[in-house]
Amino acid sequence: MKVAKELLEELVTANRILAREDIVDSFGHVSIRHPGIPDHYLMSRARAPECIDVDDLMEFTRDGAAVDAAGRKAYAERFIHGAVYEMRPDVLAVVHHHSHGVIPFGVTGMALRPLIPLAAAIGADVPTWDSRTSFGDTSLLVTNMAMARDLAATLGTRTVALMRGHGCVVAGGSLREVVLNSVYLNLNADLQMQAHALGEVTFLSQGEIRAVLETRGAFTYERAWERWCRRAGRPYDVRPMEGPLADV
Amino acid sequence: MKVAKELLEELVTANRILAREDIVDSFGHVSIRHPGIPDHYLMSRARAPECIDVDDLMEFTRDGAAVDAAGRKAYAERFIHGAVYEMRPDVLAVVHHHSHGVIPFGVTGMALRPLIPLAAAIGADVPTWDSRTSFGDTSLLVTNMAMARDLAATLGTRTVALMRGHGCVVAGGSLREVVLNSVYLNLNADLQMQAHALGEVTFLSQGEIRAVLETRGAFTYERAWERWCRRAGRPYDVRPMEGPLADV
Amino acid sequence: MKVAKELLEELVTANRILAREDIVDSFGHVSIRHPGIPDHYLMSRARAPECIDVDDLMEFTRDGAAVDAAGRKAYAERFIHGAVYEMRPDVLAVVHHHSHGVIPFGVTGMALRPLIPLAAAIGADVPTWDSRTSFGDTSLLVTNMAMARDLAATLGTRTVALMRGHGCVVAGGSLREVVLNSVYLNLNADLQMQAHALGEVTFLSQGEIRAVLETRGAFTYERAWERWCRRAGRPYDVRPMEGPLADV
Amino acid sequence: MKVAKELLEELVTANRILAREDIVDSFGHVSIRHPGIPDHYLMSRARAPECIDVDDLMEFTRDGAAVDAAGRKAYAERFIHGAVYEMRPDVLAVVHHHSHGVIPFGVTGMALRPLIPLAAAIGADVPTWDSRTSFGDTSLLVTNMAMARDLAATLGTRTVALMRGHGCVVAGGSLREVVLNSVYLNLNADLQMQAHALGEVTFLSQGEIRAVLETRGAFTYERAWERWCRRAGRPYDVRPMEGPLADV
Repeated sequence: MKVAKELLEELVTANRILAREDIVDSFGHVSIRHPGIPDHYLMSRARAPECIDVDDLMEFTRDGAAVDAAGRKAYAERFIHGAVYEMRPDVLAVVHHHSHGVIPFGVTGMALRPLIPLAAAIGADVPTWDSRTSFGDTSLLVTNMAMARDLAATLGTRTVALMRGHGCVVAGGSLREVVLNSVYLNLNADLQMQAHALGEVTFLSQGEIRAVLETRGAFTYERAWERWCRRAGRPYDVRPMEGPLADV
Repeated sequence: MKVAKELLEELVTANRILAREDIVDSFGHVSIRHPGIPDHYLMSRARAPECIDVDDLMEFTRDGAAVDAAGRKAYAERFIHGAVYEMRPDVLAVVHHHSHGVIPFGVTGMALRPLIPLAAAIGADVPTWDSRTSFGDTSLLVTNMAMARDLAATLGTRTVALMRGHGCVVAGGSLREVVLNSVYLNLNADLQMQAHALGEVTFLSQGEIRAVLETRGAFTYERAWERWCRRAGRPYDVRPMEGPLADV
Repeated sequence: MKVAKELLEELVTANRILAREDIVDSFGHVSIRHPGIPDHYLMSRARAPECIDVDDLMEFTRDGAAVDAAGRKAYAERFIHGAVYEMRPDVLAVVHHHSHGVIPFGVTGMALRPLIPLAAAIGADVPTWDSRTSFGDTSLLVTNMAMARDLAATLGTRTVALMRGHGCVVAGGSLREVVLNSVYLNLNADLQMQAHALGEVTFLSQGEIRAVLETRGAFTYERAWERWCRRAGRPYDVRPMEGPLADV
Repeated sequence: MKVAKELLEELVTANRILAREDIVDSFGHVSIRHPGIPDHYLMSRARAPECIDVDDLMEFTRDGAAVDAAGRKAYAERFIHGAVYEMRPDVLAVVHHHSHGVIPFGVTGMALRPLIPLAAAIGADVPTWDSRTSFGDTSLLVTNMAMARDLAATLGTRTVALMRGHGCVVAGGSLREVVLNSVYLNLNADLQMQAHALGEVTFLSQGEIRAVLETRGAFTYERAWERWCRRAGRPYDVRPMEGPLADV
C-alpha cells in the first residue's frame, strides 16, 4: 500500500528538525504509524537523522520485520516503536531520543516534572524504565519485542517515559506533537536542573497541566513547526496528518 | 492612520534580533505603541519572531481587538501589551519572552538582581507575578485583559516583571531599550546562577544602579543594535523612534 | 613506504571532525599507526586540527623523530602517541585532547564513569595521570618519551586516561573508534557533572559495559562518521582501515 | 606618524577574533601601544568589535584625547588602556572585556586560579578591583584617568585584573598574547566553576606556572591565531609585531 509523498516528506522533516534542535545526534529515531495499515509503521533505515531522505524510509510490521528492506539496515531499537503502536491505538508517532537534558534525570531518579506550559504534556508523573529490572545486565538497547513491550508497559497511557542511562520515548498523536514534546521535554529538564540549584521549585499543578492541554490548539504546533522547518532547511507545508487517517 | 515604513521595519528587526539572540524561540512577542493613536499598538500576527515580515504586522486596540485582521490570527497573549500601554504612558515598546535564564528564578522565588551595569535597568527589585494568586489553575497564558491588568499592576513602574513558570514582560521607552534590557536580563540571570554556586554575591547597589541609568546614553543602545542587526541579517538604520513621537 | 591516499584523507577527516565537534580547539592531535611500518605513526605537523590538510601529515618514528620533516614543525607532545603505540600493539589510532568535559574530573579526582552505552568503552575505571607524581613541577606538557611512557603505563590496557590539569589520551583500534570514544567521553563527563548535582548516580554496571562492547558493531561507528563528515564538510568514504592492516 | 597597514589590520583581526570567540559582545575593546609614539595608543572608535574596520581605528594620547577624531566617538572606557600603558612599559596590547566566565568570580570573591597550562599566564594571584573601594557608587565604568590609574595599580605587574560586577583587563606584550590570555582566562573560569561543583580542585603550582611560561614559544600563539583568523574570516598574516618595535 503506497503512502502519500507528503507524509513521507513530513517524516523526513521531523528527522531533520530533531537533529537541528539537538534532540538527536547520530542516534535516535522517529516513526509514524502507517496510515493505511495500522499495525505497520514507517521509519528510516539506520542512519543519522540529519542525513536521511525519503529513499531511506522503510515500512515495518508491528514486530519490526522490514516489509521491503531492499538491502537497507534497520535501526536495532526499532522494536520500541512497534510495541508502543501495539499497546496504544491513539499513538500515531513515536520518537526515541537521548537528548542531553533527560539523561541526568534518568540516572538519578530525580523526578522530572513540567514547570513551563510548553512542557505540560509530559505530565506530572514521568516514569523511568530501567532495563535491569526485568532483563538484568544488557547493552541497555531495546533490541527485541520483549524489552520493548516492557518499556511500553512502563509508558502506559503517558506521553513520555525515561529510560535509565539511555534516553526516553515520546509518544503522541502526530509528528508535530511528538517533536514539540521532545524539544520542550529537553528544555524543561535543563531549566529544572538550574532551578533545583536555586531553591525549592514550583511545578505546574495538576489543574494547570489540564488547563494547558485543554486549550492547546493546532496553531501551537504550527507556529513552532514553521520555524523549525526554516531552521532545518525544509519547506513548510500544509499538515498531511491533519484529520482522520485516510488511506492514501 | 498609516505608520511610517521605517518604524514597521524596525519592529521586524526587533523580532529578528530577539530570535537571533535566543531571547525568544517559536514563542514570545514584541510590540510598539502606535505612534499616532496612543491607545493602539502594533505587533506581528501569531508567528515565530524569526519568520515575520512587515506584512505580518497588525494594529490592535488597547483591549486587543485587531483593527484590520485580514484573516490573520493574533497572538493569544497580546493582552499583556495592551494592559502595559494602558497603565504606563511612558512605555512605547513591550517584549514578552521566555528566555531560559529567567525561568529558574520565576519558579523558585530566588530574587533576580542586577550584578552588571548592562542589566542595571531591571532594578533592584524585580517582582514575580503568579497567575494562580488571583486566577487559580489556568494555562498560565495571559489570554484576557483581567489577567493582563493584574500582571501590569505587579509590574508597576518597573522595567521587568517575571511570570512564574512562564517567562517575563519587559517594558521601556523604545524598541532598542526593551531589546537590550531583554538580552542583558537573560545574561544577568545566567551569571547570577553561576555566581550563587561560587559564594555570596555582590550585586549593584542602589546608588550604582542609579548612576548607570543616569549616564546611559543612546550610544549604548546604538552600539548593540548595529551588531545585532548584522547578526540578524537586517540593515542597520537611523533610529525612527528618536525624538518625540510624531504622527507619521 | 607510501601510504594510501584514502588513509591520509581519513586522518585529515578525523582532525576536522574533532575540531567541528569541539573536542579539540587550536590544540590537541590525532594519529594513526603507520600501516606498513608498525613502529612508525602518522600525524599532522603542529597546526590547529581544523586547518590541516594532507600536505600537513608527517611520519614519525616510535621515538618522535620526523622521517621527512621538510621544514615542518612537529607537535611538542607527539611523544604521547609513540609511547602508546609502543606499549599497545592493539592500538592503531590515538587522540590527545583537552575537551572541556574531562578537565574538571582530572583536577578533582572525581571518578569519571560511563552512564550511557555510547560511553561504555571508557570503562568502569578511568585512571588519571598526574605529571607531578614522577616529574615534579613541569609545564604539564608531555615533551619526551620518559613522560610519555609513564603516561602510557597509567593508561595500561584501557581506552582512556585522564591527565591532571591537561586533558586526556584516547587509544583504540581505528580512527572511527577513537573519535567516537572521544566525543562520548566528553558528553558522558558533561552529563555526569549535571547528574551529580541532582543526586546519587547509577552508572553502567560492569556487566552492562561488557554487553555494550560485545554487541557493538561497525555500523555504530559508521552511522556517526557519516554525520560527522557531513558536519565537517568532508566526503564520507568507505572505510580504508577496514580489515587487517595490509601494506598499501 | 603613520602606522604600518599590517599593524592596523592585525588590530582589526584581534577585534574580530575576540567577537567570534565570545570574549566580547557589543561591548569591550582592544588596543595596541603606538609603535612610534610610545605614550600613544591605537584603538577603534566606539563600535562593537565584530563590526569594526581599519577606518574605525583612532590614535589616542596617554590621557585618552583623540589625536584626530574626525567626528568619531571614542569608547567611554578608553582610559583603562592609557593608564596601563603609562604604568607598564612592557605592555604593548590591552583588552578590556566582560567574558561570561570571569564575572561570577568578580562578584563573589572566589579566587580565580589557573588549572590548565593554557591559562598559566593569568598567574596564581588574580586580583579583583572594586570601583566602590575608592570611588563609591559609580556606574562602574572607568571613564577617567583617576579610576583607570587605580585599576592599573591593582593590576600591578600582573597579566589580569578582574573588575567587580564588570569584567576584567588583560595586558601583555602582543595582540596574540592578550587575545590568547583572554580566551583561556574565560575557559579556565568556566572549567573552574564546574570543578568546584565536583570537589577539591588541584590548581597549577607556582612551579608549574613558571615552567609553562618559560617554555611558551611564539608557535603557541601562532597555532591559535591561524585558527582564529580562519574562524573570524580574516587572512592569517605574518606577525607584524614580531621583533623589537621599530618605527614604521
